[in-house]
Amino acid sequence: MGEGRTYKIAVIPGDGTGPEVIREGVKVLQAAAERFGFKLDLHYFDWGGERYLRTGETIPEGGIEELKKHDAIYLGAIGHPEVKPGILEKEILLRIRFELDQYINLRPVKLYPGVWTPIKDKGPEDIDFVVVRENTEGLYAGGGGFLRKGTPQEVAIQESINTRFGVERCIRFAFEYCRKRNKKKKLTLVGKTNVLTYAWDLWERTFYEVAKEYPDIETDYAHVDATCMWFVKNPEWFDVIVTDNMFGDIITDLGAMIQGGMGIAAGGNINPQGVSMFEPIGGSAPKYTGKNVINPLAAICAGMMMLEHLGEEEAAQAIEKAVIKVCRDHLKSLSAGKMGYTTSEVGDLVANYTAKGV
Amino acid sequence: MGEGRTYKIAVIPGDGTGPEVIREGVKVLQAAAERFGFKLDLHYFDWGGERYLRTGETIPEGGIEELKKHDAIYLGAIGHPEVKPGILEKEILLRIRFELDQYINLRPVKLYPGVWTPIKDKGPEDIDFVVVRENTEGLYAGGGGFLRKGTPQEVAIQESINTRFGVERCIRFAFEYCRKRNKKKKLTLVGKTNVLTYAWDLWERTFYEVAKEYPDIETDYAHVDATCMWFVKNPEWFDVIVTDNMFGDIITDLGAMIQGGMGIAAGGNINPQGVSMFEPIGGSAPKYTGKNVINPLAAICAGMMMLEHLGEEEAAQAIEKAVIKVCRDHLKSLSAGKMGYTTSEVGDLVANYTAKGV
Ligand SMILES: CC(C)[C@H](C(=O)O)[C@@H](O)C(=O)O
Ligand SMILES: CC(C)[C@H](C(=O)O)[C@@H](O)C(=O)O
Repeated sequence: MGEGRTYKIAVIPGDGTGPEVIREGVKVLQAAAERFGFKLDLHYFDWGGERYLRTGETIPEGGIEELKKHDAIYLGAIGHPEVKPGILEKEILLRIRFELDQYINLRPVKLYPGVWTPIKDKGPEDIDFVVVRENTEGLYAGGGGFLRKGTPQEVAIQESINTRFGVERCIRFAFEYCRKRNKKKKLTLVGKTNVLTYAWDLWERTFYEVAKEYPDIETDYAHVDATCMWFVKNPEWFDVIVTDNMFGDIITDLGAMIQGGMGIAAGGNINPQGVSMFEPIGGSAPKYTGKNVINPLAAICAGMMMLEHLGEEEAAQAIEKAVIKVCRDHLKSLSAGKMGYTTSEVGDLVANYTAKGV
Repeated sequence: MGEGRTYKIAVIPGDGTGPEVIREGVKVLQAAAERFGFKLDLHYFDWGGERYLRTGETIPEGGIEELKKHDAIYLGAIGHPEVKPGILEKEILLRIRFELDQYINLRPVKLYPGVWTPIKDKGPEDIDFVVVRENTEGLYAGGGGFLRKGTPQEVAIQESINTRFGVERCIRFAFEYCRKRNKKKKLTLVGKTNVLTYAWDLWERTFYEVAKEYPDIETDYAHVDATCMWFVKNPEWFDVIVTDNMFGDIITDLGAMIQGGMGIAAGGNINPQGVSMFEPIGGSAPKYTGKNVINPLAAICAGMMMLEHLGEEEAAQAIEKAVIKVCRDHLKSLSAGKMGYTTSEVGDLVANYTAKGV
């Protein structure tokens, strides 16, 4: 870092309310840039459902190569009511994750003061953990096929493909992250060792082997089914969790709910040696599109994670403080249409607090 | 039915607190039998961790054939701290489910009055749905293997195997169940169509094909990740859910939590043409073993489901009323050691109310 630093960001606003929330996210990022003395060089990509319906193209030829020239990617939401589910997700979102080898999906689950959680008797001191989800293997690898499709004898196979290489780098990332986070220094492997005895044997073996290199980190194991129960009953038990792609998908959505929902939850698709992508985890919410009522905080938090990843820690912290202030002192609810403010007003509030400091 | 009816029940108390909770369950079943004029012919099987450690045997030779001679199976809990996780689950619990072709796992998620739920603003009128989980296929089929095990190039594959036959019979069961239940008449398919495009293509196709035969049932689809959020935020949206083995495992545990936890949640492993097995869904809870503090209500509810399955609906209803009465008027909590009563006292209370009627 130093004066004059510029980050080249690929912005993919995407579908539905994606562009609205990204607009507010950019507003806040610009406020932080101004205050903390860096520059954002933003390049917009119109990938998503509209373009697909118009041209038949999801990611145009050379698009992935284009992304690789950026320092990070800032994504709104992908998903269009007129496109069959699966197409845009697979050909845009998952394709970027896989081709840029963003092998970690990082999902902080943190309840901010003033945010309503649907679970009883738990506050910000109880809900503060991070899920490290493997992001390039498992059931998401696309393995499988049909036999005798469309007949009464049809068989459909879906394969979870796990490699030592992929599992180990994910687990290592989680141990390093846990050490750096420096909270409870506890890493929990979440799996299903008692039934999925191939995949989880590899995970478990790798986990305990790598653990030997991290004697300062306490290790723990929990079945995925029990983990869902504890998220709701004892979220304070967790510090950092590492799990596979599919289980990670499930538990991070549950995590999003207990931290206040889609209005606030953000994630990073990380390639520590490459280009990472940051996104609010909610969908494109077509029914709220263009109404200026959607909550932009999740997109703002994704931007905050992006700055942290780029090394702008002070700026990230300033945004977090601003978000907390807005949650605590302004918003009536995090739900679309019930905030007591419009989308752009929320963006303005956070941008102002980010600019001035709280 | 008619006077003189006798049910031959295989009882597998199992490990840990299994025998304690089954004892109370049997007490209640006997009270119901006496009042409603049927007889129970109970046959005990000592399968579980103790026997395995002593003899190396999980299910002895001929054991499965023996079970087939019964009208139903009543199971406590399988799982022993000194046995490596996976062995007893696979060789006893999953083996019975598979070999007796208990292709449905039926899990009512019902919050009884007076029971504490960890989620806010929801009561018994909101939490009342049933999960129909496929119980003999998917990731539980045991498909998969290793390549180059133990090397840096290791690959571990875990296969989800889904057949039209298996998926269709499960979906049909769910539609029939939803019709018979006659509440909201809404059946929700829970899956991951946007990513697991082989398995869930088969499920989705089959679902909408079978749906044509049930024009009185409203159909809906939800991704498994979103479903977990809604269980916590909007459980009232659900009536009957149908899903595969792995997702069913996960969402039913979350369901158990919102209905009050392991102290109350029970399930049935159903073969509509064969022998079905009923179990509390909690584990063997080794740390509470022999202390007379574990909550037996889940085992009692499993017994209630068994009677309902056997056609003793009146008796089942009497037990349910007794359980509700005990939850509402007696227990301080459903958690082990915090009930304000011992295990056997809770059994006595429910048995008495079942005998006298509430
Ligand atoms: C949209 C979908 C493909 C995606 C996933 O399953 O990974 C989403 O649920 C997520 O968690 O980012
Ligand atoms: C004990 C285990 C094998 C089992 C399962 O995964 O099915 C349990 O979690 C259940 O849901 O009955």
